[in-house]
Amino acid sequence: MPELRKDPIVGRWVIISTERAQRPSDFKHEKDEKKGGFCPFCNGNEHITPPEVLAYRQGGAPNKAGWSLRVVPNKFPALMIEGALNKKGDGVYDMMNGIGAHEVIVESPDHSLNLANLPEQQFEDVFWAFRDRILDLKKDKRFRYILVFKNHGLRAGASLEHSHCQLIALPILPKTVIEELNGSQEYYSYKERCLYCDIISQEIEDQKRVVLENEEFIALCPFAPRFPFEVWVMPKNHAAHFEDSTKHEIHNLSQIMQRTLRKLEKALGDPPYNFMLHTSPLSMANPEVFHWHIEITPRLTRMAGFERGSGFYINPTAPEVSAQFLREVDA
Amino acid sequence: MPELRKDPIVGRWVIISTERAQRPSDFKHEKDEKKGGFCPFCNGNEHITPPEVLAYRQGGAPNKAGWSLRVVPNKFPALMIEGALNKKGDGVYDMMNGIGAHEVIVESPDHSLNLANLPEQQFEDVFWAFRDRILDLKKDKRFRYILVFKNHGLRAGASLEHSHCQLIALPILPKTVIEELNGSQEYYSYKERCLYCDIISQEIEDQKRVVLENEEFIALCPFAPRFPFEVWVMPKNHAAHFEDSTKHEIHNLSQIMQRTLRKLEKALGDPPYNFMLHTSPLSMANPEVFHWHIEITPRLTRMAGFERGSGFYINPTAPEVSAQFLREVDA
Repeated sequence: MPELRKDPIVGRWVIISTERAQRPSDFKHEKDEKKGGFCPFCNGNEHITPPEVLAYRQGGAPNKAGWSLRVVPNKFPALMIEGALNKKGDGVYDMMNGIGAHEVIVESPDHSLNLANLPEQQFEDVFWAFRDRILDLKKDKRFRYILVFKNHGLRAGASLEHSHCQLIALPILPKTVIEELNGSQEYYSYKERCLYCDIISQEIEDQKRVVLENEEFIALCPFAPRFPFEVWVMPKNHAAHFEDSTKHEIHNLSQIMQRTLRKLEKALGDPPYNFMLHTSPLSMANPEVFHWHIEITPRLTRMAGFERGSGFYINPTAPEVSAQFLREVDA
Repeated sequence: MPELRKDPIVGRWVIISTERAQRPSDFKHEKDEKKGGFCPFCNGNEHITPPEVLAYRQGGAPNKAGWSLRVVPNKFPALMIEGALNKKGDGVYDMMNGIGAHEVIVESPDHSLNLANLPEQQFEDVFWAFRDRILDLKKDKRFRYILVFKNHGLRAGASLEHSHCQLIALPILPKTVIEELNGSQEYYSYKERCLYCDIISQEIEDQKRVVLENEEFIALCPFAPRFPFEVWVMPKNHAAHFEDSTKHEIHNLSQIMQRTLRKLEKALGDPPYNFMLHTSPLSMANPEVFHWHIEITPRLTRMAGFERGSGFYINPTAPEVSAQFLREVDA
C-alpha cells in the first residue's frame, strides 16, 4: 500500500510508493519514451489494460475494439482505490494510507494523433469524459479533490507516446489548490469580489496578454507567469466547479483549448507541455470565492536550484511577448 | 531592467527578463551543455568575467591567475545590482524593478574537478566564500534574503561544465522560505520549541533515516521527501543563520557535506543534483523559530503535470530505503 506522508514544516503531502521501491540502479540510465513497439492504448489491445470505467463507442462490447475514447484505471497507480485512510501519527510526523483513484483517459484509438489535432468532436469528448469521471468519483466520500492533467512529450513526463490525459482523486487537498483558495479567499474577504473575475476584466480591458476569446472563455498569458508561453484558460463568467459546465460551455471551452494548443504547437514546434485543470474541491462551502481554470505550461526551460530552492521563477519571456506571438500565429 | 512581478493569487514572485526576451525560435532546440571549448571560469581566463568580488589566492594580482576560489558577478544576471526598487501597482497587479545581486562562486581553477572531489581544504573554502559573500551583501539594506545554491549537471540546470555555485540576493522573501518560516512559527507558537530541533531529536532516536552524523551536524533523508535520495544537512544545535557558524562548525559542515555528496555520487553514478542553502532572512526578529539547513535534491525523476498542478509529489523511493543505501555506500 503506498503511503501519504506530510512534510511537518510546509505541510506538503507526498506519495511514497513503498511497494515498487526504486533502488539506485533503477535511476542510472534515463528511460526513453517508448517509440513504436506494442502500445496498450491502441485499438484491439483493450485486454492489456484494466477493464474500462468509461468508454464512448459507436458499437462493440465493453473492453473490445470500436471505441472513440476510453478511460481505464492506471495499471501502475500512484494510489490504491481499495481501503480505509487510517490516518496516524509518529511523533512530529503525520501519514495515512495512499488511497485514491488514478485513471487514464485515452483520447483516441489512433496512436499517431496528438490531442491538438483530434477531430473537433473527439476533442470535445475529452472534456465530457473529464466531467463524467469527476461526477462519478464525487460519490466516493473518501475523496476531497480530483486533479485532471496532461503530460505531452517525454520532457513533460509522458512515459507512453499514445496521447492520453490522467486523473487522480485525492483524500486531501493538494498544496497548490490550498494556496489558490487561500489567496482567493483573502481577496474576497477584502473586496467581496472574485479575484479571477477581476483579473479577467482587467485583462479584457488591457488586451496585452489576451491570446484568444470566445463567447464564454478567455485564453491569456498570466501577468506573472512561471514559464515562457504559459497560458491560462478561464470561463469569463464566475464558476467554481468545472463539472457544472453546460453543454454550450463545454463546446466553447473545447474550441478555445484546441485553438490554443494548436497555436502553441505551431509557434513552438510541438513543444512538450503539461496542462492542469484547477477546479474547486469536491465539497466547497463558498463557491463565490474560487474560479476554475486550466493552466497550460510548455516545457521550454529547465527548473534549476534557484527555482527549487526559492519557489521563485526566472522567466526569460514576458507574457506580453508570448501573447503577441500566439495571437499572430494562425491556427 | 528585469521586472519582479507578483502573482496576485498565490503571491509567488517571478523575475521577468524584459531585456533579452526569448522568442519562440530560441526554444526550438534544446541547448546542450558546453563540453570542451573555451571556459570563462578556467585559470588564465579571468579577463572574460566581470571583475571578481572575492578571491582566495596564494599570490598574483586581482583578476589574474593564481587563485584557488573566485567569486564574480554573473555575466548574464537575472537581477541588476544598480537602482531603486520602485514598487508599483497596476490594478490587481504588483511589481518592482528587478534589483538584486547574482554572483558565481567558482570552486576551483581546475575545469575537470567536480565539487565532491575537491581537496578537503578547497571544499571547506566554498563554505567560507558563502559566508564572506553573505556578510558583505547583508550591508545592502535593499536586500531581504540571500539564496545560495548549486546546479550540478545539465538536467539540474547547469549551463557551464566548470563546477560552480551561485548566489542571488533578493529584495523580497522567496515563497519557499516564507512557507518554511510560517510552518516553523506555527509549531513554535504551539510547542514553544523549534520544529527542526524536534525533527532532529526524533531522527537521532529513530536512526532509520539518518545518513551521517558528526559532532555538530546530521545528514538525513527527510520523512516526506519530494525526490528519491533527497538529503537534508542540518546543524544539530539550534542556529538560525548559516553565516553565524563558527570555524569549527564550518569545518564539520564541510566534512559532512563532502561525504554526503561522495555517497550520492557513488550510489547513483554522479547524478545531476541541486543543493539549496536555506538560512534565515537577513533581518530576523525571532531567531529561536527557524533553523538553517541545506537541502540536496538529486534529479532522478521528472516532474510531470501532477506535480506541477498539485504541488504534490510522487516519490518511488521511501527515505528509509534511500538512507540505508547511502549509509552502506563507502565514501
